[in-house]
Amino acid sequence: MNKIVVIGGSAAGAKAAARAKRMDESAEVTIIQKDPDLSMATCGYPYYVGGVFDNRAALISAPTGVVRDATYFRNDKGITALINTEATSIDIDKKIVHCRSVQGDSEREIPYDRLILAMGAHANIPPITGREASGITTLTSMADTDYLRRLRDEKKVQRVLVVGGGLIGVEVCEALQHSGIQVTLVEALDQILPFLDWQLAKLVEQHMHSQGVEVICGVAVQEFLTDKGAVCGARLQDGREIDCGAVVLAVGVRPNTALAKNAGLELGDFGGIRVNEFMQSSHSDIYAAGDCVEIPSRLTGKPVFAPMGDLANLEGRVAGENAALGNHATFPGTIHSGICKVFAFQAGSTGMSEKMAQKAGIQGYTAVMHASPDKPGFMGAKLLISKLLVDADQRIIGYQCVGPGDVSRQIATAAMAIQGKLTVTELVNSDLPYAPPFSLAIDHFIAAAHVMQNKLAGLFTGISAQDVWEMVQKSENVHFLDGRSPQEFAEMRLGIGEKLLPIGALRSRLAELPQDKATPIVCFCKISMRGYESARVLQANGYTNVRVMEGGIMAWPYAREK
Amino acid sequence: MNKIVVIGGSAAGAKAAARAKRMDESAEVTIIQKDPDLSMATCGYPYYVGGVFDNRAALISAPTGVVRDATYFRNDKGITALINTEATSIDIDKKIVHCRSVQGDSEREIPYDRLILAMGAHANIPPITGREASGITTLTSMADTDYLRRLRDEKKVQRVLVVGGGLIGVEVCEALQHSGIQVTLVEALDQILPFLDWQLAKLVEQHMHSQGVEVICGVAVQEFLTDKGAVCGARLQDGREIDCGAVVLAVGVRPNTALAKNAGLELGDFGGIRVNEFMQSSHSDIYAAGDCVEIPSRLTGKPVFAPMGDLANLEGRVAGENAALGNHATFPGTIHSGICKVFAFQAGSTGMSEKMAQKAGIQGYTAVMHASPDKPGFMGAKLLISKLLVDADQRIIGYQCVGPGDVSRQIATAAMAIQGKLTVTELVNSDLPYAPPFSLAIDHFIAAAHVMQNKLAGLFTGISAQDVWEMVQKSENVHFLDGRSPQEFAEMRLGIGEKLLPIGALRSRLAELPQDKATPIVCFCKISMRGYESARVLQANGYTNVRVMEGGIMAWPYAREK
Repeated sequence: MNKIVVIGGSAAGAKAAARAKRMDESAEVTIIQKDPDLSMATCGYPYYVGGVFDNRAALISAPTGVVRDATYFRNDKGITALINTEATSIDIDKKIVHCRSVQGDSEREIPYDRLILAMGAHANIPPITGREASGITTLTSMADTDYLRRLRDEKKVQRVLVVGGGLIGVEVCEALQHSGIQVTLVEALDQILPFLDWQLAKLVEQHMHSQGVEVICGVAVQEFLTDKGAVCGARLQDGREIDCGAVVLAVGVRPNTALAKNAGLELGDFGGIRVNEFMQSSHSDIYAAGDCVEIPSRLTGKPVFAPMGDLANLEGRVAGENAALGNHATFPGTIHSGICKVFAFQAGSTGMSEKMAQKAGIQGYTAVMHASPDKPGFMGAKLLISKLLVDADQRIIGYQCVGPGDVSRQIATAAMAIQGKLTVTELVNSDLPYAPPFSLAIDHFIAAAHVMQNKLAGLFTGISAQDVWEMVQKSENVHFLDGRSPQEFAEMRLGIGEKLLPIGALRSRLAELPQDKATPIVCFCKISMRGYESARVLQANGYTNVRVMEGGIMAWPYAREK
Repeated sequence: MNKIVVIGGSAAGAKAAARAKRMDESAEVTIIQKDPDLSMATCGYPYYVGGVFDNRAALISAPTGVVRDATYFRNDKGITALINTEATSIDIDKKIVHCRSVQGDSEREIPYDRLILAMGAHANIPPITGREASGITTLTSMADTDYLRRLRDEKKVQRVLVVGGGLIGVEVCEALQHSGIQVTLVEALDQILPFLDWQLAKLVEQHMHSQGVEVICGVAVQEFLTDKGAVCGARLQDGREIDCGAVVLAVGVRPNTALAKNAGLELGDFGGIRVNEFMQSSHSDIYAAGDCVEIPSRLTGKPVFAPMGDLANLEGRVAGENAALGNHATFPGTIHSGICKVFAFQAGSTGMSEKMAQKAGIQGYTAVMHASPDKPGFMGAKLLISKLLVDADQRIIGYQCVGPGDVSRQIATAAMAIQGKLTVTELVNSDLPYAPPFSLAIDHFIAAAHVMQNKLAGLFTGISAQDVWEMVQKSENVHFLDGRSPQEFAEMRLGIGEKLLPIGALRSRLAELPQDKATPIVCFCKISMRGYESARVLQANGYTNVRVMEGGIMAWPYAREK
């Protein structure tokens, strides 16, 4: 009888245990879980905090509503789950896990044939003075969740500081703001949501501002201010002080690998357990999965630390199957797909950002911005702004998308295109499901591929909003052309010295343009479709230095005149 | 100067003209359009009829709200659009299109260097007695749309009969039902939505029933009943009579190719203009795009008639580019992606249905049903029911999905997977964007691939609801096992003689099962996850004839006891 022991009973561990048992009903499967709960829906914590739902038990329940406790695991899954039990060491030679109860009143040894490590990750605690004060928390456990939920329910704390603008950080901002709490987000880097390139992240940041969240980027917290042991504020490195009754630290997590390290297992450069394609550690009897491992990036081939709930489940499934049946299931790694809801925005990414491509030393890639509605105006269109990256072979390697529109479908589409290694030529004629309630006749993603194709074919030369901003700052001699209507211009405009020249009037008003055909001209409009058309007309009329500001006004990450 | 003439100014024609002009600003581009309108959002007609929006002009407007009339085409696009102008013949040798005004008061000849045919399709009018009566319409033009919208606004007609249960038919049902009109849908085939397999179509049909639409399948209309020249009802072939104040015929469309045929261009087996990969007809100066052509199925390689708005746009883009610059852009064909909204349901498909695979003679394919929520229960989960098909090489060749959940993302994901020719091994570890507002940690699509992998690996033997139904009808000696809880059973159950044996009690109550280990047993639950787990336990305990009813109760297309 195969004795399979799983250390950790959240996403990866619970999945691995269940899969192992389904593969081999005769196996004796045991989960060792330090927490009092099992199978916690960790990614759901912010939504309970924010009051999207009020039934705490839903976080630890099966879809049927049954709480996934030890009894459930015993009866429904045929698995022994030892909760409140901490694995203290692994004896690899004797194949024994040493455990003790969390209360410290008992110890035991659990023998295994195969061991699966799924200890998850710990929240990083930055070494900021005052971090031990009460009122400073992370959001990684049910206890953290309960604390933050009380902030909502008790309404005693008016202001909260969130440190860190990653996925958890922005989700916590929304949750607390929805709870009626004034939130300030401080991010030491120059942008939130590091999986996005700067321009897209700024658009999300603007949206958070519009929802009342104060977002401060590029400044770190220097010190937490305390009053009688409780946090009452923070001082930033630029001297600013922020009042707050609580602090949420959301500056990432690190793999929880003390057990593995002490047992002599190999760790990777990010501190995660090193595993092969079978999710097998450096010791053949021991598998590992979830937030305690490193997995390959499918784009670079190099190991990465990717602590995502969906990957944890998939890794756990592979580890569980192999622990039960021997190595045959494989896990290929991640393409870095991620998404989050930020108030009325969605923000997602899959594959490489431009930042990531640069860091990985990818040569000859091309990036393009695109903005459009997600569906027809008469169906309640919402905006999407995206960035598509292709490599030198014109294969899609990355796609980011933000906005109030249906980003989820966009990123899922792109993720599959990346996994299929599709080229621009293939993407431009993609056959996606179309009906007016769901998309434009030419879906936003396909249109992004069209813009890319046009760019690669030399039909237009693009320029980023950042480069336009630079030009404006340096007062360069550039002619900016806004191709929209006077009414649109009256309602909203950049105010960078642009000339309004509606596309419908352009052909008859060419005389108003500089007569020097080498004059640098930048065309744009709301989304730069008319900007592109303007550029085509100008090029046909001999202008040689015409560029299109990609994504148009909708992708402008700076303040507008109006 | 390249003279490009486009016959037809709706989706394909307008797109081809605009693309051609952007490729070659010096080209003289002319659209010949019989209708008074241009660039009509044909797919939006049902939503205007149903009152999703009230601004008729939105159907013919650019995203900026400007009506796309001849002036717009002239000024914004640099294109001459001749509306109310009918092309009567093409002189291929002289390269001239003969036209006359719709009023019949003028004729003209328009010379071309390159011609693009985009005449679209005609609605099929079935040869039913009484079809000339007033009150019988199709929904293919702005005039049809206006007529049906008046039905909504005037509230004089209480009952409408819709003939044909394809995409347009079901969309019209929803539109009229939302208008307060009692709708009956009659479909001669045994199911609605022919792109779906029967079981999934029945689930949609059940939903339409639940929304108050009477759906009658498998019976044709024999005769329209009239009163003073106006339709007042219909008699079906089974003798039933249906009262109605209006009839919408939605029994498909056929390519509008009289012009092409008369000019000697080759047509295909479906009557559409035959084109090559450049969207070029049998005559090298003449391109064609949209609902008047046949294109290849990318799955079978054979020509098909695929009159879809999204494909029309993509085809038009290719035809326009090639007409302007010579052949270099190509169009690969369709993978048959489609979707529609049906009240609170979405229904979509991409690639092959099982029906289509059988018809195409695909050998060795495997199909599997899967049901699950689209996201966690605490985030407001909605159900998805899907069917995945893979070929003998285990590559995905088809995916259908229906339900109140986010079908759109599912079908878009699958469409890209099909285009990437991904295998089950690749699909099971797909990296899709996950966060609780958007999906389960293991997305429904990935889970469907997991079920497929389990089936292919022989971990379970599936049985369809239809086969179970047959067994029940024949009173076969089969043991049906429902693995849910007593509470769930009390609230909803099939009532096919099943035994309730909750998965949580199965291991301890094996003695209650037939002692003959060869007894046929069919396991299921709400979605057949617990059904699968039950089957695994039974198999491990020596039962040799255990099957899992795929998709569970949620995919049951018949009436339930409760």
